[in-house]
Amino acid sequence: MTDAETLAERVRDGELRLHDLEEHADPDVAATARRLVIEAETGADLETVGDYGFPAEVAESAIENMLGAAQVPMGVVGPLAVAGGADDSAAAGNRKPTEHYLPLATTEGALIASVNRGAAAITDAGGADARVVKRGMTRAPVFRVDGIAQAETVLEWVQANADALAEAAQSTTSHGELLGVEPYVVGDSVFLRFAYDTKDAMGMNMATIATRAAAEVLEAETPADLVALSGNLCSDKKPAAINAVEGRGRTVVADATIPAELVEERLGTTPAAIEEANTRKNLVGSAKAGALGFNAHAANVVAAAFLATGQDAAQVVEGANAITTVEDRGDELYASVSLASLEVGTVGGGTKLPTQSEALSVLGLGGSGDPPGANADALAEVIAAGALAGELSLLAALASRHLSSAHEELGR
Amino acid sequence: MTDAETLAERVRDGELRLHDLEEHADPDVAATARRLVIEAETGADLETVGDYGFPAEVAESAIENMLGAAQVPMGVVGPLAVAGGADDSAAAGNRKPTEHYLPLATTEGALIASVNRGAAAITDAGGADARVVKRGMTRAPVFRVDGIAQAETVLEWVQANADALAEAAQSTTSHGELLGVEPYVVGDSVFLRFAYDTKDAMGMNMATIATRAAAEVLEAETPADLVALSGNLCSDKKPAAINAVEGRGRTVVADATIPAELVEERLGTTPAAIEEANTRKNLVGSAKAGALGFNAHAANVVAAAFLATGQDAAQVVEGANAITTVEDRGDELYASVSLASLEVGTVGGGTKLPTQSEALSVLGLGGSGDPPGANADALAEVIAAGALAGELSLLAALASRHLSSAHEELGR
Amino acid sequence: MTDAETLAERVRDGELRLHDLEEHADPDVAATARRLVIEAETGADLETVGDYGFPAEVAESAIENMLGAAQVPMGVVGPLAVAGGADDSAAAGNRKPTEHYLPLATTEGALIASVNRGAAAITDAGGADARVVKRGMTRAPVFRVDGIAQAETVLEWVQANADALAEAAQSTTSHGELLGVEPYVVGDSVFLRFAYDTKDAMGMNMATIATRAAAEVLEAETPADLVALSGNLCSDKKPAAINAVEGRGRTVVADATIPAELVEERLGTTPAAIEEANTRKNLVGSAKAGALGFNAHAANVVAAAFLATGQDAAQVVEGANAITTVEDRGDELYASVSLASLEVGTVGGGTKLPTQSEALSVLGLGGSGDPPGANADALAEVIAAGALAGELSLLAALASRHLSSAHEELGR
Amino acid sequence: MTDAETLAERVRDGELRLHDLEEHADPDVAATARRLVIEAETGADLETVGDYGFPAEVAESAIENMLGAAQVPMGVVGPLAVAGGADDSAAAGNRKPTEHYLPLATTEGALIASVNRGAAAITDAGGADARVVKRGMTRAPVFRVDGIAQAETVLEWVQANADALAEAAQSTTSHGELLGVEPYVVGDSVFLRFAYDTKDAMGMNMATIATRAAAEVLEAETPADLVALSGNLCSDKKPAAINAVEGRGRTVVADATIPAELVEERLGTTPAAIEEANTRKNLVGSAKAGALGFNAHAANVVAAAFLATGQDAAQVVEGANAITTVEDRGDELYASVSLASLEVGTVGGGTKLPTQSEALSVLGLGGSGDPPGANADALAEVIAAGALAGELSLLAALASRHLSSAHEELGR
Repeated sequence: MTDAETLAERVRDGELRLHDLEEHADPDVAATARRLVIEAETGADLETVGDYGFPAEVAESAIENMLGAAQVPMGVVGPLAVAGGADDSAAAGNRKPTEHYLPLATTEGALIASVNRGAAAITDAGGADARVVKRGMTRAPVFRVDGIAQAETVLEWVQANADALAEAAQSTTSHGELLGVEPYVVGDSVFLRFAYDTKDAMGMNMATIATRAAAEVLEAETPADLVALSGNLCSDKKPAAINAVEGRGRTVVADATIPAELVEERLGTTPAAIEEANTRKNLVGSAKAGALGFNAHAANVVAAAFLATGQDAAQVVEGANAITTVEDRGDELYASVSLASLEVGTVGGGTKLPTQSEALSVLGLGGSGDPPGANADALAEVIAAGALAGELSLLAALASRHLSSAHEELGR
Repeated sequence: MTDAETLAERVRDGELRLHDLEEHADPDVAATARRLVIEAETGADLETVGDYGFPAEVAESAIENMLGAAQVPMGVVGPLAVAGGADDSAAAGNRKPTEHYLPLATTEGALIASVNRGAAAITDAGGADARVVKRGMTRAPVFRVDGIAQAETVLEWVQANADALAEAAQSTTSHGELLGVEPYVVGDSVFLRFAYDTKDAMGMNMATIATRAAAEVLEAETPADLVALSGNLCSDKKPAAINAVEGRGRTVVADATIPAELVEERLGTTPAAIEEANTRKNLVGSAKAGALGFNAHAANVVAAAFLATGQDAAQVVEGANAITTVEDRGDELYASVSLASLEVGTVGGGTKLPTQSEALSVLGLGGSGDPPGANADALAEVIAAGALAGELSLLAALASRHLSSAHEELGR
Repeated sequence: MTDAETLAERVRDGELRLHDLEEHADPDVAATARRLVIEAETGADLETVGDYGFPAEVAESAIENMLGAAQVPMGVVGPLAVAGGADDSAAAGNRKPTEHYLPLATTEGALIASVNRGAAAITDAGGADARVVKRGMTRAPVFRVDGIAQAETVLEWVQANADALAEAAQSTTSHGELLGVEPYVVGDSVFLRFAYDTKDAMGMNMATIATRAAAEVLEAETPADLVALSGNLCSDKKPAAINAVEGRGRTVVADATIPAELVEERLGTTPAAIEEANTRKNLVGSAKAGALGFNAHAANVVAAAFLATGQDAAQVVEGANAITTVEDRGDELYASVSLASLEVGTVGGGTKLPTQSEALSVLGLGGSGDPPGANADALAEVIAAGALAGELSLLAALASRHLSSAHEELGR
Repeated sequence: MTDAETLAERVRDGELRLHDLEEHADPDVAATARRLVIEAETGADLETVGDYGFPAEVAESAIENMLGAAQVPMGVVGPLAVAGGADDSAAAGNRKPTEHYLPLATTEGALIASVNRGAAAITDAGGADARVVKRGMTRAPVFRVDGIAQAETVLEWVQANADALAEAAQSTTSHGELLGVEPYVVGDSVFLRFAYDTKDAMGMNMATIATRAAAEVLEAETPADLVALSGNLCSDKKPAAINAVEGRGRTVVADATIPAELVEERLGTTPAAIEEANTRKNLVGSAKAGALGFNAHAANVVAAAFLATGQDAAQVVEGANAITTVEDRGDELYASVSLASLEVGTVGGGTKLPTQSEALSVLGLGGSGDPPGANADALAEVIAAGALAGELSLLAALASRHLSSAHEELGR
């Protein structure tokens, strides 16, 4: 009987609990034992789940009750030329796009082919421009006061003691920087939205720990009582207008200008047809739908890039919040994607896992940037450019499919 | 020189393109060659990405330009007792919860431990109830008309010819059933929202193909011109009120009633404290944030379950749209999570991949259900119950952390 | 001492209460006495407030604690040519626009002049088309159940007993017709959205009374307990996506096609410039703002028309929910306004008051239509056309102001 | 033939246009002539519309094409005790609520009676607290740039030249103060949201004029081209999350604490029942409805107060954006209303008209405050307290109606 089999038996005998196995064996043996238990309980066969390509201890900070790994097919898009904030010198004319290969992990057939088609059009046209226009990982605790009169005194204290809050927050982190604190009041609830520059880290943990320290100061100095360290004005992993308007993580825009002949050659349609599809679908249709996202499928690229590069998959919810615009400028097409709240990092979290780390190295963006934050900025810009490629390709497909059927009609 | 090395050289020589490799070798060799090219171009090492546990041809319908696979740690939550629609007999008193192990793939440390804590409380309390209350995968094309007068004639045609549209749509599918068509007009754009019962398939492709056939009939019989087969009133992979209100995929609710002593023992706090945290954070905070999601972190469980079981990761955007409610009923706590638009399937798409298929078999829900749709219903119900476990645990953590610090204060 | 002075003294002596005066005198004397009391208490002079032009008893169902009347300047826009649903015969080519004068009451200087400019352009171009595309006054009570399992049984009862609900609802009204009942569930709250055709009445009271009767049946027959007769899925007097998507009252669209030369002559700009202003401001700007209204100032026309014609001023909130679209079609401009939830009536409520009734008679739309509902439909269509005139004029002003300053720049 | 009859004849003869009459006669004669024309054209009788109680010239800045006035019944609510920002001294315990009579103009029967009931409960309980927590009238022009790279240079210019923008803006106004400029970018559109302290004026015109001056500076100094002086991120007269989150005009909160026995005596129900109605209807129901307003009927009070006091009726749209919270605190009820964007003034606009000016004098808040802004602050606070009274009364009615029917049930 192997060690794992012995452990599994002890679980089945009620001697050990499923989540205690790591206390009795090394992580790989524990995972094996856990698979044995679950296989026995459910009749499932977990052979491939157990065939993961890294020592389980690498994943210890990422998972509990580990069984193994989900394997999601990873492909690659590119070359995709992007001129980001670091690629342009101040002097006009010195724009130097960088060609990237963007790894995407997905189970949606045709996605990579489609994004690749858009990427080719963009790259042929000289590349996309992309810029991070705002940064700030937020955390917004909610405090109880006894009413609006007391809330006013708390707000006054916050305004007068910004330094004390900043000092407390920043004492918890060597990298993060408190950018500001925005107060909101609803009746006897006071929300303070703390925003941090977290450099190359996605930064939610950093923001949470720093905010807790600041919240403790507020509780000590004012009548405010902390009810929840996150009061949903952050807003993490929920679609929320506050993020769409004010941003979270990185607010990043990518755009491209593509000559009309290239649109026809590469995308099989015209600037006018793409503009019309975008206006009726992404602007008017989204408006009628009561949407927070005015795009075709930005989430596809954001989700696939997040999976490949070790970002938090649940943050696709707000990371995919995007407005796509298209203008037929006559002899060329202008298209842009503006992502309001893309939360990405190149250090920490899932970026440390082997396949994810390898994917980041395909982009040359693993680890800390120089200056700090530069890698996460560049990652945000490339993902935005990838989303732009996806938008262009899908809009063109919608528009040209119609054109082709229109052509058939005319041919009758 | 291996076959892969030869192929890679031909790509570097410009003789082959990166996405043509599958035409010249079997999928695994092609993927190896592609890794060689990308490694050479970028300096990355793709060893672990290349160490995937399935024949590449299995993934051919899921990926293009394959490099290998992203490996995301998978753990397990449970046992989680859930009484779903199929577990209760019509006669009152015949409620028989089923104990499930729910596989979750994530890189967020502590998530599984937290959900597990909530699951234990729910299971100890007799299990969650869960119900799919609405079904319908939607696709909403947008048509151009010349103005509102013409739009009116199109709407009249649609109303008078519902049968013709249904016939065209259903001619494309042996499984799907058209449930209805809802028209919307904005100026000279007409949107028709088609809803289908797609049984155990998530069903977006089925809905798209069927809708295309119906759209062709409409174009042939009326002055309406199709502009885009998706006009964003579907609404796929964007947060949109139309889904939050009317649902998409499955609308599913899970709830549980937990005795106060169990709340204290398992969750370390009181029903009153959890209710307060939920009201100030998930209801009032979300309202102030302009949110479409009134929950704490439903996206975490939805994303992790989607990754583990082969769902579309980009659909976490609307899949995580949830309202969490909590009531302190005195001697017990009532809590619920209502997911408006959870799009899940147990056949097709990513569910066919090896690790994902294995995860579904842990739930006993792989493949078609009996009757058709039953497996996808049950999967939706278990994910909803998992989300409920996650909500309870996080709300309790927020509430008790405060309680404990309050206790320390009082102890001074 | 007049009767009013005597009454006022009795109030000051604490013998009568301010709201009891109508029990002791005719309404005009009571209002006079009330003004005396308030003038004495506050030092205000209420002479003009007291100089109202109708017998106070006319207003008894509209106001309590009457002091007199607010006088809001009323002007007129027109002629505004509108071809509504009743103006077009089924045969193409038989379009006969009707020229309307639209009374507007407002205190915003320049509003009427601006709308008039737009109206002139529309009328010169042959008039607007307008259509009511959906009707239904809604009321949505919320019921308490003990959980989702019980909610399911309630939903099943509702589905099986639609006739019983309709019978109860319709027993309360001779005019109204129940169009349908849509159920929604969140945890242990069940919402039923009842929709009624209320003909020429705005119909909220009718809908409320009918729904109460149906709710009583539901309470008697199922475990559901009524918590509030309005559960905010109605949704009355709040901006809500459910109304923007599904409509409330009338969903009405007005559009017009204006030759380019007329755009330049009447509006001082070009179709292209108006399209650009609309796209960047009303579509993209509104998207970024997290708006439920994608227009320039539809609320101005809706509010002014509501005030003039005796509609409920608080329903401007959802009545002004509109999407404006503009297309440069080369030699002509297409523009539309789609109002999702315009709640108007030509009988009942404030329409009975003298100045409001006179304003309706300017439109020829006072009282019941033939068939019933036709007058309220036509009123909705004219207001929509007025909103379109306002949109065109303001967009043109924004666009041309820029053009003119651009011209000046070029002239330097 | 009177002068008016002569003028009317000249209009009918095509010699004069309807909107030119003021050039040929004094405003009252012109209005009389216009009524004659419209009466002749439409068959309407405009006698009461023509029976307005002020010289027409007073309304010249408020209306064009004047016919007369709409008369809306005005009543009064009160006494309503409110302790606003100016009523409390810094020292605790020195709270001195002021008793107000709040004039409301409405055509909705029972509204004033209902608000009055809530006001009585609040006043008996010692009055409401109310605070303006944020001020800022906004205007957000949209500029065209050629892409995101250029947008970045514009943003950098704005950041570096805040002083130049402020100087230009403030050169246009003696009262207004620029509080800040917030930039937003979507593709090739740059939005700058200017916020002003406009003291006792509602301030939209002031903000528009000042912003135009600043926009001209930006156009002169950067490549940005103004497309529209309002780019809908302002956001005026549209429901928009940006206002709900960040405020516009005044952000004002009113709350009250009412002993349980008073709730039963005055409102006929219990704190628990009101809390439940508020949670299920205003919080959960509004969440499910995709609402921007989480209240019962704040728009009723806001609209009626706006009409009475000469505010802009179209601004009810965002003025009514409110979150209502209710807590059963055991022996007392806590209730609050938080209005995010209440745009009110006590000088300028409709406040100058006679009945409106008289209504403001009932509140003692006509004209400029001391210090400037104090009157508009106080007006916002009283309207908020009025909205609170309305919420309490309606929630209590909903709750008690249920209680009474529940009582009947129990009595069987």
